Amino acid sequence: MNIMTMLTGSRRNGNSEYLAARALQNIDHRNVYLLDHRMEPVVDMRHAEEGFPETGDDYEALLEEFLRQDVIVFAVPLYWFGMPGQLKIFFDRWTQYMRDSRFDFNERIRGKKAYVIITGSSPDPKIASLPLIQQFNYLFEYVGMEFVDYIIANGNKPEEVLNDPFALAKMDLWNEQLKAAKREDA
Amino acid sequence: MNIMTMLTGSRRNGNSEYLAARALQNIDHRNVYLLDHRMEPVVDMRHAEEGFPETGDDYEALLEEFLRQDVIVFAVPLYWFGMPGQLKIFFDRWTQYMRDSRFDFNERIRGKKAYVIITGSSPDPKIASLPLIQQFNYLFEYVGMEFVDYIIANGNKPEEVLNDPFALAKMDLWNEQLKAAKREDA
Amino acid sequence: MNIMTMLTGSRRNGNSEYLAARALQNIDHRNVYLLDHRMEPVVDMRHAEEGFPETGDDYEALLEEFLRQDVIVFAVPLYWFGMPGQLKIFFDRWTQYMRDSRFDFNERIRGKKAYVIITGSSPDPKIASLPLIQQFNYLFEYVGMEFVDYIIANGNKPEEVLNDPFALAKMDLWNEQLKAAKREDA
Amino acid sequence: MNIMTMLTGSRRNGNSEYLAARALQNIDHRNVYLLDHRMEPVVDMRHAEEGFPETGDDYEALLEEFLRQDVIVFAVPLYWFGMPGQLKIFFDRWTQYMRDSRFDFNERIRGKKAYVIITGSSPDPKIASLPLIQQFNYLFEYVGMEFVDYIIANGNKPEEVLNDPFALAKMDLWNEQLKAAKREDA
Repeated sequence: MNIMTMLTGSRRNGNSEYLAARALQNIDHRNVYLLDHRMEPVVDMRHAEEGFPETGDDYEALLEEFLRQDVIVFAVPLYWFGMPGQLKIFFDRWTQYMRDSRFDFNERIRGKKAYVIITGSSPDPKIASLPLIQQFNYLFEYVGMEFVDYIIANGNKPEEVLNDPFALAKMDLWNEQLKAAKREDA
Repeated sequence: MNIMTMLTGSRRNGNSEYLAARALQNIDHRNVYLLDHRMEPVVDMRHAEEGFPETGDDYEALLEEFLRQDVIVFAVPLYWFGMPGQLKIFFDRWTQYMRDSRFDFNERIRGKKAYVIITGSSPDPKIASLPLIQQFNYLFEYVGMEFVDYIIANGNKPEEVLNDPFALAKMDLWNEQLKAAKREDA
Repeated sequence: MNIMTMLTGSRRNGNSEYLAARALQNIDHRNVYLLDHRMEPVVDMRHAEEGFPETGDDYEALLEEFLRQDVIVFAVPLYWFGMPGQLKIFFDRWTQYMRDSRFDFNERIRGKKAYVIITGSSPDPKIASLPLIQQFNYLFEYVGMEFVDYIIANGNKPEEVLNDPFALAKMDLWNEQLKAAKREDA
Repeated sequence: MNIMTMLTGSRRNGNSEYLAARALQNIDHRNVYLLDHRMEPVVDMRHAEEGFPETGDDYEALLEEFLRQDVIVFAVPLYWFGMPGQLKIFFDRWTQYMRDSRFDFNERIRGKKAYVIITGSSPDPKIASLPLIQQFNYLFEYVGMEFVDYIIANGNKPEEVLNDPFALAKMDLWNEQLKAAKREDA
């Protein structure tokens, strides 16, 4: 069972990253910092004869890595009431690769398990991030991924999330759940 | 009264662009194609001593243009149940420039009028784009912009939106409204 | 083709009722004022041996009427950011009648077409009623009804909706659509 | 500090009731079963000269009890993607009593703390109840109540919620929080 965190914020050691690490404590997994990967925005060529352009960026390697996973934990600081632009570009590019036979995207994406960690502080993220949860749900449903669970945690300044006991408790429960899944899989 | 369209899709002559043009027919305005502007993702340095980095991209000129407007018509094709990643990066960077005294961002942004055009086809955008409408609403509210109105129109393939009579009727009504506002302003 | 309006507000001649009448102008249909029907709240006896109680109220006749329709236009003033309590009780009772073989509920409800008219004024209904639209969508989807379209109109005081040209234009478009459907059906 | 549970489901000993009891274990409070109170739907007479009618039902006593509280824990089974009709009627009637000087509604309601427990099973309540959370948020905001927190728990059949460790953990945290508040208040 392959597990990956997708760390989508724009600074290292943020609150969402802390929670992802806690959920995966003592579990073998891979961490991907989205900002380490150069990704061009999608150029929509679905209706053009010449097709999608070659970009030469890091996207294809990243996508291949993503498609090798069974479980993805998305660590998402709430930016302007939504996901960071870089993560959105990651999804936008799917439009191209769904149509690229080299990747077998539609088949491989089905059934992957998604966990979503959202962190924010003001305005209150437990309300302000609900449209984002709904967006993730539509998106996962559309490609056949399973939206296992989400947490909306309080934290903006470094390490602030340590003051959110429910978020910590939930990460510990995810940790147990994922450990059990790993054992079953072995 | 300065009016601008913000064309955020990844191809020219899309359905949302068509509707924006119709809303602004015979009204003096400026068109901005977001993809013509190179924008780096935000790097969050709010909590770092050295502050935000210089990016040298097209963002500052674009933001200055934006801040000169009174009315902005956002033309937004629905991508993966949200706004295109490039538009999200445009907003994400506000986090930096709200704190940059050269721009007087917080003062100048207040009271700007926003119109939002969303186009999509399947899944049905009149439902699938509701989280995005909610996100725009939170976002505009947060900075003190006025969310005048939105339309959710049916259209994906080139010119498909011409088959959505309600969207066309609404653009014609916006056109009257904006013409009247221009006259009053003159 | 049977068409019915479900008038769910708590006063006669409200704005949502006006719009429903406009959508159905010169189209044969039946009007149901929900408040004219005595309906007890649901008592959940799904997990009790004795089953659901007899209520002796007007619900069964109303439900039978509803199930005879092909198209239902719901006229819904926004009350406290949701549907009126009486309309909610109408839906809540479905829990009982889905399980009552006399009604053949699950079979007959499938494929019915729903139009939803929401009216409100302050806070701005184009945002404040989005959760209600989402609720209607889930609900119709669950039983297999088709959510054809909705309008969110501005109007609270008597006849205020006459000042909302978008809403009037949309009702006229629904009227054409429904007339065409009637002709095809004949 | 007065604390009340508002038990809004249509059967006794449901899952939401269990969670509310757990949150308030060993804390002095009052339980109100909404179904024990006869409440007529609102009749909207805001725009009529004769004003609102006398109903002679249990509403005024219930409202007075509600207004005496500092903290209200709403226990809400998800019915048809929303709150039970009876709870909606409780809120709908506020429209009348906001205008009734005997109650001093607008002043007394401000600052009350609301906790919301939602339980459901299928479709998955962590998504299906998001519109309801948004509705509660708008509603509390409108009258100036504080929406302290919510839990969305899995449970439909009797005692099913005992299998949701996240929900139980959160109730225990609320219990600590409320005990601390009681102590401070004493």
